[in-house]
Amino acid sequence: MGLPKDCEVSIRSRFKKGERNLITDVPGVKVGHVTLKNIEKDIHTGVTAILPHTGNLFKEKVLAGSSVINGFGKSVGLVQIEELGNIETPIIMTNTFGVGTAMNALTKYMLKDNLDIGTTTGTVNCVVTECNDGELNDIRGMHVTEENVLQALENCGDVFEEGAVGSGTGMICMGIKGGIGSASRIVSCDGKDYTIGAILMSNFGMSGNLMIDGRRIDTEHTVPRSKAEKGSVIIIIATDIPLNERQLKRMAKRATVALSRTGSFLGNGSGDIAIAFSNTNIMPHYSEKNIIDTKMFHDDAIDKVFEATAEAVEEAVISSIYHAETVKGIRGKEVFALKEFL
Amino acid sequence: MGLPKDCEVSIRSRFKKGERNLITDVPGVKVGHVTLKNIEKDIHTGVTAILPHTGNLFKEKVLAGSSVINGFGKSVGLVQIEELGNIETPIIMTNTFGVGTAMNALTKYMLKDNLDIGTTTGTVNCVVTECNDGELNDIRGMHVTEENVLQALENCGDVFEEGAVGSGTGMICMGIKGGIGSASRIVSCDGKDYTIGAILMSNFGMSGNLMIDGRRIDTEHTVPRSKAEKGSVIIIIATDIPLNERQLKRMAKRATVALSRTGSFLGNGSGDIAIAFSNTNIMPHYSEKNIIDTKMFHDDAIDKVFEATAEAVEEAVISSIYHAETVKGIRGKEVFALKEFL
Amino acid sequence: MGLPKDCEVSIRSRFKKGERNLITDVPGVKVGHVTLKNIEKDIHTGVTAILPHTGNLFKEKVLAGSSVINGFGKSVGLVQIEELGNIETPIIMTNTFGVGTAMNALTKYMLKDNLDIGTTTGTVNCVVTECNDGELNDIRGMHVTEENVLQALENCGDVFEEGAVGSGTGMICMGIKGGIGSASRIVSCDGKDYTIGAILMSNFGMSGNLMIDGRRIDTEHTVPRSKAEKGSVIIIIATDIPLNERQLKRMAKRATVALSRTGSFLGNGSGDIAIAFSNTNIMPHYSEKNIIDTKMFHDDAIDKVFEATAEAVEEAVISSIYHAETVKGIRGKEVFALKEFL
Amino acid sequence: MGLPKDCEVSIRSRFKKGERNLITDVPGVKVGHVTLKNIEKDIHTGVTAILPHTGNLFKEKVLAGSSVINGFGKSVGLVQIEELGNIETPIIMTNTFGVGTAMNALTKYMLKDNLDIGTTTGTVNCVVTECNDGELNDIRGMHVTEENVLQALENCGDVFEEGAVGSGTGMICMGIKGGIGSASRIVSCDGKDYTIGAILMSNFGMSGNLMIDGRRIDTEHTVPRSKAEKGSVIIIIATDIPLNERQLKRMAKRATVALSRTGSFLGNGSGDIAIAFSNTNIMPHYSEKNIIDTKMFHDDAIDKVFEATAEAVEEAVISSIYHAETVKGIRGKEVFALKEFL
Repeated sequence: MGLPKDCEVSIRSRFKKGERNLITDVPGVKVGHVTLKNIEKDIHTGVTAILPHTGNLFKEKVLAGSSVINGFGKSVGLVQIEELGNIETPIIMTNTFGVGTAMNALTKYMLKDNLDIGTTTGTVNCVVTECNDGELNDIRGMHVTEENVLQALENCGDVFEEGAVGSGTGMICMGIKGGIGSASRIVSCDGKDYTIGAILMSNFGMSGNLMIDGRRIDTEHTVPRSKAEKGSVIIIIATDIPLNERQLKRMAKRATVALSRTGSFLGNGSGDIAIAFSNTNIMPHYSEKNIIDTKMFHDDAIDKVFEATAEAVEEAVISSIYHAETVKGIRGKEVFALKEFL
Repeated sequence: MGLPKDCEVSIRSRFKKGERNLITDVPGVKVGHVTLKNIEKDIHTGVTAILPHTGNLFKEKVLAGSSVINGFGKSVGLVQIEELGNIETPIIMTNTFGVGTAMNALTKYMLKDNLDIGTTTGTVNCVVTECNDGELNDIRGMHVTEENVLQALENCGDVFEEGAVGSGTGMICMGIKGGIGSASRIVSCDGKDYTIGAILMSNFGMSGNLMIDGRRIDTEHTVPRSKAEKGSVIIIIATDIPLNERQLKRMAKRATVALSRTGSFLGNGSGDIAIAFSNTNIMPHYSEKNIIDTKMFHDDAIDKVFEATAEAVEEAVISSIYHAETVKGIRGKEVFALKEFL
Repeated sequence: MGLPKDCEVSIRSRFKKGERNLITDVPGVKVGHVTLKNIEKDIHTGVTAILPHTGNLFKEKVLAGSSVINGFGKSVGLVQIEELGNIETPIIMTNTFGVGTAMNALTKYMLKDNLDIGTTTGTVNCVVTECNDGELNDIRGMHVTEENVLQALENCGDVFEEGAVGSGTGMICMGIKGGIGSASRIVSCDGKDYTIGAILMSNFGMSGNLMIDGRRIDTEHTVPRSKAEKGSVIIIIATDIPLNERQLKRMAKRATVALSRTGSFLGNGSGDIAIAFSNTNIMPHYSEKNIIDTKMFHDDAIDKVFEATAEAVEEAVISSIYHAETVKGIRGKEVFALKEFL
Repeated sequence: MGLPKDCEVSIRSRFKKGERNLITDVPGVKVGHVTLKNIEKDIHTGVTAILPHTGNLFKEKVLAGSSVINGFGKSVGLVQIEELGNIETPIIMTNTFGVGTAMNALTKYMLKDNLDIGTTTGTVNCVVTECNDGELNDIRGMHVTEENVLQALENCGDVFEEGAVGSGTGMICMGIKGGIGSASRIVSCDGKDYTIGAILMSNFGMSGNLMIDGRRIDTEHTVPRSKAEKGSVIIIIATDIPLNERQLKRMAKRATVALSRTGSFLGNGSGDIAIAFSNTNIMPHYSEKNIIDTKMFHDDAIDKVFEATAEAVEEAVISSIYHAETVKGIRGKEVFALKEFL
């Protein structure tokens, strides 16, 4: 659950950490994994699901914003987030060729609980994100099934594993083993504590570029520097601060700070996408009123939110690597865990 | 094939039309439909495929740009078009809940011919666009299959039907029956003729707002004005003019002119998305050279391109309506053809 | 004041007009002109100022959004509107080479009333917009002075002239005389009437393309069709509906509909920029609280806002032309009034 | 000229540095300063001019792209760079309230050499960027004159000072004295050496956050941590690699990496803007041909360009601080040089 206390690696924390140091410290947020691992069949992939809250998301949408840090990616649902500023489904993370299947599963999941979708009201905007795990996984085999996606949704809870699990199973980050990482920070606003949480799947960066709190980790003696930064990273940021959609977009953009500090230069081939949502700023699907009351943050006070976001995402990157183990994948490719280099 | 000569409706043409007055007048562009229609089962949907050229699209990408006119939509592939400025697959049009299945089918279609995808090179960015046909079609039934998508790709040719066919089968436009429409225009550049072609599926606008060449069509006596402009429109624009990616984005934006002139006010619920590509400005997937020769257009001369684009898209909207027949769909919903109002 | 009743031209009105049919129907909005006209010196230019409200704009900012319809323009202040979603100064319209001087004047105007700017708080984001009036005006002479700008601000009131006045003095639209136009519409939300108002300076479009409510106006027999659509149009939209910044951006985008319907195809050389603000959604410069209450609109009900906006802007275009008189400008260039073609 | 060899601070260099380690290593690029410093009158400001090449920039525009990293800024000219993808004037850097005056000066500078501007052709898009130096400088006094701007243009040459000079005179970065910094890197493409150069004025970040090559510099014992990251940073990136406008935008975006690594979290109040241009990809103002030959880079090989850009900008930040001296400014504000903390 986040980086353990007194472990070999840490990053500077100006802000207090949440109780679990996970995105689920944000009240209502739940996470679930399904890990698909079959070494003989070269399967190293999976699904991770994030619930922004535990109610009916279609009826009670969460305000949201996204930032396409580098758009070499195939995530779906971003166009409507940008236009309407909200999310109305759980967020699925999986591998690139699992996106179509995850869309189908998520659509059926939403249809089941909402008989109005596609009949008396419009359709639904599924949010499915992805990274390419083809360096370790038989991605061409398209092994993710609709059942896997539904199972990940069912597995959602407060506690979840990090490292090479769920959609992070086949990830490689900075030439070493990546995966799922999470962290949280507490920010005080108007005398009350709020939480910012991040979860990501780390599949970005180039061997030799990893930095942990400013310290370079020498991996090039073992892992040859690849020709191109490939891979991608998906970062989901949750908060209970009532930011509005413009502010959530700004918050999402601060994920770039964390990527840069851990060694990324936002390589060409990396689909780096951040999505941020607030689960206290709710947009009802149906409203009798045209004009509705909402809250926003005073931008002049938002620096603490930005700094805590950058910090949580940076720690989530390091945590994703810290928890991942050495693995041997498709075509004999071996990827080492961080501990081999410390 | 486009609006017939001397038919009851027409729009002003400052530019010469292409031979077929279809997007396939652009050399190399092909279009194919699969129409799914089963009145007893309330199925009124389908798939339309567009090939930007007939070679290996992954190896020889076409430069492209897109414009999200109104982002209440679920099309996929746009993020990467924006970042990299190219398209590397056929373009699929289908209904909103067919997108996941179409992604799966298109992925498999691309994998079959490109053994490097997902092994020695990266993945592939599928472009799948959609409109909600749930007013006529049992969209919750998710009736589009992977086979339908592959069949639409196989059906691609120079000649194709317009109206309530392919992905346009269940479309409603301005309260009357919409569908697939297409048109083309010839523009002379440096003494040589080039072609601009458009194809669209028209599912936008509100009853009572239809304008044909400035003339309002009274439909409200039969079709009650709906409370919201719902539906969407997807517009694909092709050309053999060597525009670059920035210019193709500008070209795509001019589709808005056509929507506005036919009566749309870009309603909230309508996912209005335009994609433009040039199939003479090719980006190879593999290149020995870092720096490659390409062509662009001098922006100072681009007004004729913009005006011809607006004209082709406007005619395509009218053609989509002109060719569609009266239909009765799910929940007894009857939608009348244009001819009922002329 | 808007298009007179029973004048020769009109556009369809689905919505009730405001009392004056001017942007100043939105409570608190004021407009003032300074017209610079000296035929012997070829001066045909001016300044138009718009006050979003009559309080201290820096202390009580209005939420705002903008849409760069075509970015061949030199307006200033848009970057910060996009980031922070508000406007904190009056809006100035003038000619392209008057922007620097208008910035200086507006800066001094703001500094005078706000001793904190540049000392105990940050700086101020001046919003200055422009069109190129060089076809009629000696624009190279840079005749706009800081005093002109301050005078236009002082002239602000509820009633103002349209046509070839203020910053509209030297405008040409669709090959005929353009200028300042305005209109307003009433929209009912939650049982209460709200106002949407527009003001614009019309300097766009190509001879032969003018459409008034769908009817083409033949001008080409007198005005040769120019080679390029040059000129620009600036559209300011005001409302007292409490839209948020995302929604104001969407509202601004609907100005495109009006431009398209009056004959524009969004020509390359035309800087077409729309800005929308709500003067009931106020953002204080100083706030003791981090989290503030605000209002937003339910997007599902926003179609009436969009349609009324498109209608008001369309009428403002026609009104700008309707009120302008034939003029002879620099280099003997004669530009005829609309009435010559009716 | 850049960071001296063997000085106390350095950052990792994967790429060879240019001869001068300045942006002027890119052939054709020139830089000039005017420093305005009068301690009795609290004047600590200035102007810095950058010539993308030494020919007629209006007639031979350079392809360009920009990235608004955080849009709390008042720079002008970005809208047209985004639409047309080029720059047609020198780039001016100055203080926030000097922008209007710099626009006027730059307009006159362009008019003098181009009698067609505003007569037989359109107007001109001045690029003027700014930071707020009001913490040290009497910014309300608006001390920058048109003559200062013209003089900075005249001073342009291959060699220029760094630190508290030109527009960097009054800058504060991370709580310590900032200013002008520059650096360059050599990248090999197709067997030939190309140069990437950066210049910036550093006015961003919060005391206590400075990192030099991963090492935190403790400043908080002397400089109290400010409540908000205020200030801004303008980064100009030049290259002779024939990148196209989309690619230059991507390049500009990589400046964020450098800001993040030196300690910024992209604070709310900081207008962080990067502009990149290539002076070998030229767009002529007049062209007889509609279709013109140009070059672009194969995106698959662009990682070295991105990484070298991030490195050059990071070094430029450190160099700006390294060269600046301790200063006492308006209201007795004392800002210490880096050396006080090493």
